[in-house]
Amino acid sequence: MANIRDIARESGLSIGTISRYINSTGYVSEESAKKIQMVINEMNYTPNQHARALFNSKSKIIGLVFPSLINPYFSELATIFEHLLQEKGYVIILCNTEDSREKELQALELLKGFRVEGIILGRSQCKNELNKINIPMISYESTVENNNIITVSADNYKGGAQAFEHLYKKGCRKLLHIKGPTSFEATQLRYEGFIDAANKKGIKPEIINFDTDFDLQNKNYIDGVLDNYDMKKYDGIFVFNDIVAAQMLRYLNEKQIKVPKDIKLLGFDNSYICDLLSPRLSTIEQPIISIAERCIELLFEIIDGKEVYEKEHLITTRIIQRETT
Amino acid sequence: MANIRDIARESGLSIGTISRYINSTGYVSEESAKKIQMVINEMNYTPNQHARALFNSKSKIIGLVFPSLINPYFSELATIFEHLLQEKGYVIILCNTEDSREKELQALELLKGFRVEGIILGRSQCKNELNKINIPMISYESTVENNNIITVSADNYKGGAQAFEHLYKKGCRKLLHIKGPTSFEATQLRYEGFIDAANKKGIKPEIINFDTDFDLQNKNYIDGVLDNYDMKKYDGIFVFNDIVAAQMLRYLNEKQIKVPKDIKLLGFDNSYICDLLSPRLSTIEQPIISIAERCIELLFEIIDGKEVYEKEHLITTRIIQRETT
Repeated sequence: MANIRDIARESGLSIGTISRYINSTGYVSEESAKKIQMVINEMNYTPNQHARALFNSKSKIIGLVFPSLINPYFSELATIFEHLLQEKGYVIILCNTEDSREKELQALELLKGFRVEGIILGRSQCKNELNKINIPMISYESTVENNNIITVSADNYKGGAQAFEHLYKKGCRKLLHIKGPTSFEATQLRYEGFIDAANKKGIKPEIINFDTDFDLQNKNYIDGVLDNYDMKKYDGIFVFNDIVAAQMLRYLNEKQIKVPKDIKLLGFDNSYICDLLSPRLSTIEQPIISIAERCIELLFEIIDGKEVYEKEHLITTRIIQRETT
Repeated sequence: MANIRDIARESGLSIGTISRYINSTGYVSEESAKKIQMVINEMNYTPNQHARALFNSKSKIIGLVFPSLINPYFSELATIFEHLLQEKGYVIILCNTEDSREKELQALELLKGFRVEGIILGRSQCKNELNKINIPMISYESTVENNNIITVSADNYKGGAQAFEHLYKKGCRKLLHIKGPTSFEATQLRYEGFIDAANKKGIKPEIINFDTDFDLQNKNYIDGVLDNYDMKKYDGIFVFNDIVAAQMLRYLNEKQIKVPKDIKLLGFDNSYICDLLSPRLSTIEQPIISIAERCIELLFEIIDGKEVYEKEHLITTRIIQRETT
């Protein structure tokens, strides 16, 4: 591939002149500019971003560290981030962690090597280790204690309470909650919000603990767990996210338990999967566009050296009623 | 962030020595190595990948150009690519094109700027323009004529024929095909394979043309189209991909048309969504792991300067029967 030396040789001008022209860092005569641009076109030359990154410390890269892209909410969020950053002239380096602390730390080290200007960290499993990473960072869904890292998250605790209130209004009293892994701060808060709101009304929901998010390698995990319970005991179920709620709906359909007639079912996320199911899944919406925009806005405030005083940014959730409640 | 000059200053050694140590490019005494490593640890230094990229032309970056991550098949494929490349010590820069030629060309130009060592291009909308990009490249799902670019793809034509044969064996004779956009080479071939196989048996399936893949902004597009047709006329439907088949299943459920009793329904991809639906979706599998592995294997053969003689690599599909057929 052509480099700046080739352009200098072909145009008969100095590397300094070419560099001034390409980076707009100083005077270049009109005649030289014309000549350089002609050679650039002829040689199909694209300026080297690595040289730029070294020269002005602006790598134009943001690191995106996500557990995986399998959960439709995460794949949609990643797509929106890519779109917003593209508009700002930034690219994304994508690293998946599969919720492993070790992989997350490896990813952060890697991104440091690429001198990314900022990092968006989804569902971090690290805490104090993040103090060492001296890169502007937004944590999505996990608060990082004793640290300056900004958290953006849906208000999962209130979202859990909204889930209870909706099911309660629909007449449900015998409640079941499918609870996400304890290490996921977001789903833990949904659980607490749900239980606290229920307890205030004197209701004690039953809980089924899930050790895992939706797992491609183990798509029928839910069946093995649920077969130990009698679903007919319940009239309302709140599941920690949409994709597991989709599995729950499939399970109930297979057991010929009618949704919403016999049991009302509620997910969390409002991912695109809700509208693909029948009946369509009612859910608590995490407003994905607002969340993505807030993450990017705050990240660039930090990148631009502004002080962000508020460390925790909670985005309000709301109920989206479809056909399962 | 600490740089190589800081390490030199703190250790009292020359930049040349530090560079030889970090890049393993020459002799460094045991004593100096110990000292350098100590300073590196103290200063929490990570070598600058941009300097490495300039120094030895190995950016350790692969570009992944995909329409979007919304289609679950693409999000799963991207996750597998990330995993395979991570094992090789490479990172992914992710660019989404939304199937726009213009955005695809912009993405390629951007990746050229980052001197990516290779590119995986999914469902490319470009043809001759790719001749200009002098970077090892694998095209997934689109053949690029008059070019040295390698294509890896499921055997979509045979997959379409398999779809017909399966429905035919199940007794379907009044067939409908939901056909993807003409600009998608893969879904075009599925259509041709399906029709050719049907014609050989004297059957003429009806066709409904879709101008779009699954579109988040327009989730009920399918309803508007299907309401112009009487679904009771058909006994078997083949849909160009799983996510649109999921919408079709939801539509049929809402119209109280029983699947598979009244109509048999078949998707394409074998994405994870199949197992979330009820009844679970029968589909033609694109073997995703084999496809991902073949893409990476061939890409690195080209990167390593090997000649790849076969330009088109077709991966055999197979029927996955679940509950909708």
